[in-house]
Amino acid sequence: MRINLICFGKKNDPFIEDLYLQYLKRLKHYTNFNSEFIQVKTKGNSEEDQLFNEYQKVIQIVPKESVLVLLDEGGKQFTSVEFSSFLQSKFNTGAKSIYFIIGSSYGFHKELYHQANDKISLSKMTFTHQMCRIFFVEQLYRALTILKGEKYHH
Amino acid sequence: MRINLICFGKKNDPFIEDLYLQYLKRLKHYTNFNSEFIQVKTKGNSEEDQLFNEYQKVIQIVPKESVLVLLDEGGKQFTSVEFSSFLQSKFNTGAKSIYFIIGSSYGFHKELYHQANDKISLSKMTFTHQMCRIFFVEQLYRALTILKGEKYHH
Repeated sequence: MRINLICFGKKNDPFIEDLYLQYLKRLKHYTNFNSEFIQVKTKGNSEEDQLFNEYQKVIQIVPKESVLVLLDEGGKQFTSVEFSSFLQSKFNTGAKSIYFIIGSSYGFHKELYHQANDKISLSKMTFTHQMCRIFFVEQLYRALTILKGEKYHH
Repeated sequence: MRINLICFGKKNDPFIEDLYLQYLKRLKHYTNFNSEFIQVKTKGNSEEDQLFNEYQKVIQIVPKESVLVLLDEGGKQFTSVEFSSFLQSKFNTGAKSIYFIIGSSYGFHKELYHQANDKISLSKMTFTHQMCRIFFVEQLYRALTILKGEKYHH
């Protein structure tokens, strides 16, 4: 199963980018992982317009038969072991790809909430979307080592 | 109030260290922040011995009249705004220093749980202690900008 991470905005912190690339290197040994940024014009747009534009970009990218998971403050909280079970259950569906999406500062368009298969919260605390990317790849890496019965997660 | 972060183990990831230093630079404009690593012999020691040795190092470092807060999976979860209010309430006590402690993989010695003023959980998920340091300084920075009414937290 191909695992994808979509994020809005742009890469603007070289230190986070360096760390992120380290996790991408590690993930290569475990899974087919792909991450991308979506840029949407924000200047002069209302919150509703921005969310709608983001929604439209997402549905252009995500194939209909994929699993769609929003990383959202109001989502379900997992322990790392629970998150690995969650991933396994998605692998078991036989779907070809899963897309995790980190929302912009306004969250997600209501249609995206409606279409999503699941909502996950990494923490009650708010982080920059850049920091969310780091959290996510570390947890993804951890989950895959848990599923393989490896030592990384203690 | 001096804010301190104590972590067990050692700095072993140069990419995390680089990112951490970026937050330290930012924090300098807001607070008197200090972070340190405690190293305790682990080889050949039982879990109980290790926790006890860590406990002893902590009480050597932390002055008795300080506020002591454990970053612990079983702790209270805050939103970022709640965390900033928590910090403000500690500032209001007039204590000279507050110590946040990131536990080792075994958690904390029972005496440390007993002596701690508070327990905070950053996430239900498990992160490496290195990653916890990044989370913590980003949230500390965010909390201080919230208390100053600045724009960083949206």
